[in-house]
Amino acid sequence: MKRLDQVREDDLVRELIRHLPAGAGTLLGAGDDCAILKPKLGSYLVYKTDCIVEGVHYLAEDRPALVARKALCRNLSDIAAMGGVPRWALVTILSPPEKPVRYWTAFYRGLGKTAQRFGLGIVGGEVSRSRQAAISVALIGELPENRYVTRMGGRAGDRIFVTGKLGGSFASRRHLTFTPRLKEGQWLAEQRFATAMMDISDGLGSDLPRLARLSRCGYSIMPESLPRHRGCTIEQAIRDGEDYELLFTVPPRRVAELREKWPFTKTPLTEIGALTRSTASKIPAGFDHFFHCQPAEKKAS
Amino acid sequence: MKRLDQVREDDLVRELIRHLPAGAGTLLGAGDDCAILKPKLGSYLVYKTDCIVEGVHYLAEDRPALVARKALCRNLSDIAAMGGVPRWALVTILSPPEKPVRYWTAFYRGLGKTAQRFGLGIVGGEVSRSRQAAISVALIGELPENRYVTRMGGRAGDRIFVTGKLGGSFASRRHLTFTPRLKEGQWLAEQRFATAMMDISDGLGSDLPRLARLSRCGYSIMPESLPRHRGCTIEQAIRDGEDYELLFTVPPRRVAELREKWPFTKTPLTEIGALTRSTASKIPAGFDHFFHCQPAEKKAS
Repeated sequence: MKRLDQVREDDLVRELIRHLPAGAGTLLGAGDDCAILKPKLGSYLVYKTDCIVEGVHYLAEDRPALVARKALCRNLSDIAAMGGVPRWALVTILSPPEKPVRYWTAFYRGLGKTAQRFGLGIVGGEVSRSRQAAISVALIGELPENRYVTRMGGRAGDRIFVTGKLGGSFASRRHLTFTPRLKEGQWLAEQRFATAMMDISDGLGSDLPRLARLSRCGYSIMPESLPRHRGCTIEQAIRDGEDYELLFTVPPRRVAELREKWPFTKTPLTEIGALTRSTASKIPAGFDHFFHCQPAEKKAS
Repeated sequence: MKRLDQVREDDLVRELIRHLPAGAGTLLGAGDDCAILKPKLGSYLVYKTDCIVEGVHYLAEDRPALVARKALCRNLSDIAAMGGVPRWALVTILSPPEKPVRYWTAFYRGLGKTAQRFGLGIVGGEVSRSRQAAISVALIGELPENRYVTRMGGRAGDRIFVTGKLGGSFASRRHLTFTPRLKEGQWLAEQRFATAMMDISDGLGSDLPRLARLSRCGYSIMPESLPRHRGCTIEQAIRDGEDYELLFTVPPRRVAELREKWPFTKTPLTEIGALTRSTASKIPAGFDHFFHCQPAEKKAS
């Protein structure tokens, strides 16, 4: 079994990029100094980077194809939260030299498969050595002009919603297999239901305060209303993170219409509370220690 | 002196992004799920990522502002090699938790300064922990439609040129302070002098064969013609790498015109050889061991 330091970089890169779809609108893909892309005329770009580190965001024994899937899907989840359509990714791998080449070929095969599924081109990247393996992804998406949702647009009184269910993502390994809510995010932006939106990556307890702060509001949630994965406590639904569900706010006068028109029969839609005028938020009794805890997962510590 | 693991991620990120210019055409910068960008109508995008690892591409004792400069300028050099105009960057830092916060604030101050100098917006990023520090940058540039130069367009007989001088970059610390050849690259693309172009990052001995291979040509160089930094041998000029000069090819009938019109009086322009028909290249006697050596610097080993 060959190790990474037993092959030539150019040969390795050539072998790896074989698995990658170039994507639509790609005039020049991986292999030159830069990729050349042709965005749709008049569209805006959404642009995001995210990285995962072995031993922090995934384990050395996780299947490489699933690690690749997670590396892409975390970024896709952010694109979803703006209502964007994913287009082009760059993927950098940092690897200890003793990792088997086989690990990274399996990783790239998974990368290609996931990219294909979400209509994404992978148009370049980088390989470098490091003591700890890590994967960094940068992603460009597109937006029809003016149809995007930030974290800042929420107003006091707006109802807070989440898609799907929360809690237990790491333990159940859902963090490797979740489906980013792209269609839901695009629909919410297009139909202009969401006044503010973000994805839940660090946990509701960390992410909701961020959305509220940027919307200059407080929030009040009903803990018992939180949609939970089987076997998860309210505490886990608030704290675990890695849910990759959408968290968004809707003006009260549009809530009935949202419920009526929601076309995603397989994606639960749950009202969990409301934004409030007071920025000194009403944190449900007993949960303040979660609402103030640091996200274990993204914290640089 | 505070360590990275003694501050909250949100506070750290807020402190760091204060130093960053958002750049022109940025509708929404760092701080949301994604950045939102408005490219110039009808322009193409150039898209590139590159990463540097502590102990591989720079040293722990190098000034953080210069490390930041290098992290951006390596990418800018690739944008230059396509004839692109840099626009928006995302910057990810991986850091051991015990690094002082002060290191990264100095890094971001340097990042802001370099971005400003090159008219670049820094519109997002990511912070994560890792045993070995590393910085990953993704960069979007713009191109006027159809005016870009790849590595593939060279033809047998085209003369090979380099800008500036080669060799000794790491030893002289020029690898931290070089100026990416953006204006030169844009001019060469715009005036359509260059049939193929790339930047020299791994060393002429590694990079020229790549350009030749993609242009389906061989090459012949005159070693004694190589422009060298003071004190450097021909060997070093071929092998050292990290020059970040432009390597490009020009049809013979346009060489005189190029020399006459070259407007960059401070940037030496040197003809070093020609592309040849034979793909079994004439490697100058005595240098074949360099032409086949792996780039020390980017190799995943």
